[in-house]
This record gives sequence, C-alpha cells and structure tokens, in this order.
Amino acid sequence: MKITKMQGLGNDYIYVNCFEETVKDPVTLAQKISDRHFGVGSDGLVLIMPCEEADFRMRMFNADGSEAEMCGNASRCVAKYIHDRGLSNKEEISLMTGAGIKILKLNVKDGVTESVRVDMGEPELEGLKIPVNVNANPVIGAPVEALGREYRMTCVSMGNPHAVIFVDDADSFDVHGVGASIEVNPLFPRKTNVELVTVKDRTHLRMRVWERGSGETLACGTGACATLVATVLNGLCERKAVLELNGGPLTVEWDAETNHVFQEGPAAFVFDTEYEE
Amino acid sequence: MKITKMQGLGNDYIYVNCFEETVKDPVTLAQKISDRHFGVGSDGLVLIMPCEEADFRMRMFNADGSEAEMCGNASRCVAKYIHDRGLSNKEEISLMTGAGIKILKLNVKDGVTESVRVDMGEPELEGLKIPVNVNANPVIGAPVEALGREYRMTCVSMGNPHAVIFVDDADSFDVHGVGASIEVNPLFPRKTNVELVTVKDRTHLRMRVWERGSGETLACGTGACATLVATVLNGLCERKAVLELNGGPLTVEWDAETNHVFQEGPAAFVFDTEYEE
Repeated sequence: MKITKMQGLGNDYIYVNCFEETVKDPVTLAQKISDRHFGVGSDGLVLIMPCEEADFRMRMFNADGSEAEMCGNASRCVAKYIHDRGLSNKEEISLMTGAGIKILKLNVKDGVTESVRVDMGEPELEGLKIPVNVNANPVIGAPVEALGREYRMTCVSMGNPHAVIFVDDADSFDVHGVGASIEVNPLFPRKTNVELVTVKDRTHLRMRVWERGSGETLACGTGACATLVATVLNGLCERKAVLELNGGPLTVEWDAETNHVFQEGPAAFVFDTEYEE
Repeated sequence: MKITKMQGLGNDYIYVNCFEETVKDPVTLAQKISDRHFGVGSDGLVLIMPCEEADFRMRMFNADGSEAEMCGNASRCVAKYIHDRGLSNKEEISLMTGAGIKILKLNVKDGVTESVRVDMGEPELEGLKIPVNVNANPVIGAPVEALGREYRMTCVSMGNPHAVIFVDDADSFDVHGVGASIEVNPLFPRKTNVELVTVKDRTHLRMRVWERGSGETLACGTGACATLVATVLNGLCERKAVLELNGGPLTVEWDAETNHVFQEGPAAFVFDTEYEE
C-alpha cells in the first residue's frame, strides 16, 4: 500500500489516498503503522476519501486506534495532499470531517500549497456551555488556584474547553505543574485544556499548551484559536495575530463579521513509501 | 538519498548504504532525520561503509547527533541489510564498529536473514573493574538499598556496568523507582544500568532494563548478556537461554570454552524511502 507521511506544526500522520488504495481495517492499521519503534511511526492514520456531501472526506484514527473527529493540522495536510498530488485543482476545498464540513482555503504558489486556512467555526463564550462553573458570559479574568497560587483565566470553547492564562514568560513557566493542576480543577466538569500565553506585541503571541489527557504538546489548533479570542477579549491584541507554538507559527484570525475563527498554517510532505500490511 | 528504516527488538535506526550514497554531515543528518515529528523518526542514523580491516564498517549516530560506539540491535540489522540487499553473500561477516571488530553470524533461510548472532566479547566480573565499589570477584548477591528496601545484586560489565537483581515478578515491579535509585547509588562511580529479572525456568528469563541515562527501554543487548552471565553465576539457568525483553525475545549464550557471550536475535526491514536533505 502506498502511504505518505506529512506533518503540520510537528503533528504527523500517515495519509492514505483511498481513491487508489483500500484500507479494510483502519483501527488495526492505525495501531500498527503508528508505532514509533516497530512501525512507520506517527500520531495516527488519516484516510482521504470520496464524499457526496462535500468535495472530499477525511477519517482520522489516533495511534491507539480510536477515531478522532477533526484536527486542524491534519486537515491542512489533507488539503495540500489533494491539491499538490492532483486529486483536485481547486484552491478552496470543502472537507467532510467527524466534526462536520470544514472549508479549507489554499495559499498556492507556483503550483505548491504553501499554507492552508481553515475555518474553525464560532467560539463559545458562555461559561456554563464551555463548560466551566463560572456563571458569566464571557468568562474573563476568573480566579483559579494551582499549586498554592492564584491565577486569572479567560475561558473559551472551540468545541472543547480552554483556560487561557497570561504569564510574563511562557518559555520558563511551569506548564507541567500548573497545567496538570488546572486540567483537573473541579471548576471544569469535563476537565480543560490550558494555554499559557505571553503577549509579545499586538500581533505576536507566544503560546504553550497543556492538552487535556495528553500533557504538553507541540501544537493545538483549537487552543491557538481559543487563545487569540481570549487575548482579543482582554484587549491585548488585534483580531489577527501570529501565535508561536512549540511546533511553529500559526496565524489566527477572529473575523468580526462572521464571528468565525480561522487558522492558517503550514503543511509539509515528509516522505512516501510502500507499506506491507 | 535512498534510506531504509530497520528495527531490532524495537530499536529503530535509519540505515544508509554508503557504497551508493554520500553523507557529508552525519551529525546534522542524524538530528534532522531522527526527529519523530518533523523528520522520518528513529533512534538514530547508521552508515554502512567500506572497510580495509574488516568486511564492512558501521558508524552510528544517536538522535542527538552524538556518535555511538556499538549496538547489538543495530549490528544485527546491518548484517541483514548487507546480506539481503546483496552487498555480500557471506553468512559470517566481520564488522568494524567503534568498539572494535564484531563477528556476525547470519541464520539464513530461503535467501532471507531470519536472525543474527553477535559475539559480544567476554564479561568483566571483577568488582573494581566493572566498576562497583565492592572488592569481590565475582560480585554476587551484594546488598544495595533502594527506596528504603535492601536488594541483592550481581554485577557484570559488558563494556558498561550492570546490576542484575532477581525479583518475583519483573512485570509488576517498580522498575522506574528502584532503577532510577540504583542507577545513581554511590556504590557505582560511573553509575549503572539495572536489570530486573524473573527466572521462568532454566532456559527462559524475563528481563526489564533501566538504562543509565535513558530510563526503561525496549531492549538492551549488553544488559541481556550481563543478565545471562549473572543468572549462570547464581546457578539459576543454563549457559544458553531465551530472554524476554519488552521489545521481544533475545537468545544469549555464555560459551564456556571461549568465555565469550553471544546474543542472537531478530532484525527487520520497516520501509525504504527517498529522503531530501
């Protein structure tokens, strides 16, 4: 089977073009192929498939075989694969995901997709819907305790809950200690992702993310969107800014007219190979 | 550049045939190619090269770019590559490594290398040369404390120090706590690797390894050899036995005639690809 490894901000998946290949058992294949010592090695498996309701469909499976709904980094790679490998010459692609249809806009130069813009939908700002047990809308500067200190958080949901905390220096901050503590704070009935953010200037933010259930990661697309929204709500940046994640830069825009949040970032081919199941 | 990923007991490296390819800067290449999110992903880079003093030469670089002397898992993969890809039809290959010339014996079936036997040399049993601050030769059942409990260890060097401890059930044992504690016990002037071993019967051992500087790993060839020697010294197994490591089985033999220790285990191709530097 012909497979392709791609990455976006260091989030790496194995991509299979299901117009040419047949994957009978994606759950088992995802587990085997993702193993970083015995297999090819990846964060998971992504299938690029035909679709009646949209231009294409993607299904994604984590390294443990569980099916995931949607991932901004993976959707950008899917868009680049579709365009640069000639499955479509469109520069705006509708993609069916487990979280509904996403619109992907490609930034193409000399026939090569340099970056992809993804519509991540509208943010949810009402505390009890995020959900966080703070009866406010929006939740700005709410107190939260971690390791004996009080922090101020701004809470946003992008389909999943985020607690954004501004700190003087995210790079030296104890993300592991404070992130792990706030993740399981009883204020969050479904736990929370935690973003530690330093405002460099009104269009540049440094963000580190503690992902619910995963710990610190290289990049989190919904976390970047939540951070931009939270920073705008605090009056600390413009509606469009570049976020420096551990895995690289992501541009996020909160469009005033539609209330939608867009992320634009890189996608890259790593290698192609034949994989024997 | 054409590259090949192979693994032995889950220890995975990128192999380059330097009879056909030229690697100008292996330190930088090892760092870039080994990155598991942005690169191909591996434990490091291995170059298969011509040699005047032996049939072939291997140079190996860890994922951080540092050069390593020798690795049993990698040397088995090199032997399989050389034979199965037609660089030589010999079934006994002399290989120059950073730790001297190693003799590799291939177990070939229908033209395919099924396993490789590596001469790992003689064990060092004299306490002060291992080094461990116990003036005995051999060091059998010496007391060592960890986390408030006393354990009995047998010490062996296979070029690097090992403390072998027999436990009732290695699978449920606190390898992380006890391993990390003994690694830095002042009895060991150069720290130590720690093996937790359960004797299943006289030819089957279960071994988990805490590697000095790395923590628990899937497999450690010198640790497996040290474990077989220590178990023989304690009268608990034959001179040849199968060791079940986390990464799979390894057969180890301590030859009475030559005093050399041999390990025999698997090597496997994972995939080939083109890599653009």
